[in-house]
Amino acid sequence: MTASTAAIVVIGAEVLSAKVVDENGPFLLATLRARGIDTRETRTIGDDVEVIGRTVSELAASHTYVFTTGGVGPTHDDVTIAGIAKAFDVDVVQDPTLKGLIEQYYKDRLAPPHLKMAEVPRGATVNVPKGLGFVPVIRMRNVYVLPGVPALVKRCWASFEEELTRDVFFAGVLYFNVPESKIADIMTTAQRAYPAVAIGSYPRFDDGPYLVKVTFDGRNEAEVDAARSHVLAGVDTSWLVNGAP
Amino acid sequence: MTASTAAIVVIGAEVLSAKVVDENGPFLLATLRARGIDTRETRTIGDDVEVIGRTVSELAASHTYVFTTGGVGPTHDDVTIAGIAKAFDVDVVQDPTLKGLIEQYYKDRLAPPHLKMAEVPRGATVNVPKGLGFVPVIRMRNVYVLPGVPALVKRCWASFEEELTRDVFFAGVLYFNVPESKIADIMTTAQRAYPAVAIGSYPRFDDGPYLVKVTFDGRNEAEVDAARSHVLAGVDTSWLVNGAP
Repeated sequence: MTASTAAIVVIGAEVLSAKVVDENGPFLLATLRARGIDTRETRTIGDDVEVIGRTVSELAASHTYVFTTGGVGPTHDDVTIAGIAKAFDVDVVQDPTLKGLIEQYYKDRLAPPHLKMAEVPRGATVNVPKGLGFVPVIRMRNVYVLPGVPALVKRCWASFEEELTRDVFFAGVLYFNVPESKIADIMTTAQRAYPAVAIGSYPRFDDGPYLVKVTFDGRNEAEVDAARSHVLAGVDTSWLVNGAP
Repeated sequence: MTASTAAIVVIGAEVLSAKVVDENGPFLLATLRARGIDTRETRTIGDDVEVIGRTVSELAASHTYVFTTGGVGPTHDDVTIAGIAKAFDVDVVQDPTLKGLIEQYYKDRLAPPHLKMAEVPRGATVNVPKGLGFVPVIRMRNVYVLPGVPALVKRCWASFEEELTRDVFFAGVLYFNVPESKIADIMTTAQRAYPAVAIGSYPRFDDGPYLVKVTFDGRNEAEVDAARSHVLAGVDTSWLVNGAP
């Protein structure tokens, strides 16, 4: 499959130490999915320049897009910019546009920590979404550097979404009232017959309206339909739950 | 710091494709934290033997513990066991205890897919928590292999928690009614003076009762207190919010 892939890097000790539950990863997963971009991996890592550098370097080399969240403020534990610079082996430099916006915002209250927020990896492009003061989306090659505050991430996303490729996933689904083991073999043969369709099997163990949900995801609608039909042809119709949620 | 570290690997296309929001990562982060184990990284990856193998191999070599969730059922998309075996370059073999429990459970309904759930990497230890039928916790060296269903993960955790090291984090906190930039310098000097204490700075941008929460985490209570006192001594008392949540 040559369609775009993505990786998400959530940066923040507050997530790893369970002080907050990350919302940015799920948001980006859902929005990337809606845009037809295939996220292959998410990682949550700490505020550590070396770890950020290694992680971003590896993921940027293997995916169309990388999105980082967090670690872009004015304090000692905001080291994402330094980490991204390390990933691409470039310096950290002051961006004149950001510097100007920050000076304009703080006026005579301006202090050195504010100007830390004007720093970018050399070669990055800076885009300040309207209405967000000086909160930038910094793009370093294929890496989008986003803030950590979920409301800001959403507003930043809206500002650059149209730069990204757009593709489409076709999805099919079947619900069963029998356990996975009953349909395992037919799913295996369907998966072999349609390798470009991702067939997923999700049992539930509560008192829900079905026992197993089977999903069919792919880039080609006819293939997705064919894989679903392949499974359908191999099961007893009494095993199916129609119209399950 | 020589205390135990952990990494979490969430395995499942359903999370990456935003069909479900992962609950197991946040659960494990919180429980590991409560036990004093320092989680350094979480990753979410797809149901892919090669990717699981590479990921687990890398993380098992660099952390005291690795916890995987998901991908252990009877269907074609359950490939976690094969991935773990690949990580340690061993075969997949049938565990006689699990085989016996599965045969006992299914009796004359037993079918080949059921026995897939008796497979383990060669050399793994198998522990079946009481009351969970044949749902095992499979441990391969320092890697704990857990199911994907959150309710099962919680019950499995309770069954092996006492095998893990226990340590303690000491935590301090300060709340401020001034922006981060005002306290950035004193936090930087405190962080330099107490490198073993993780000082975190978390601004909020809503109408909450404070502007910045500063956290102090460490293994040594006196050091945590000293780092907090260092910051406290460097700020104006009118900047502090007492008793903020």
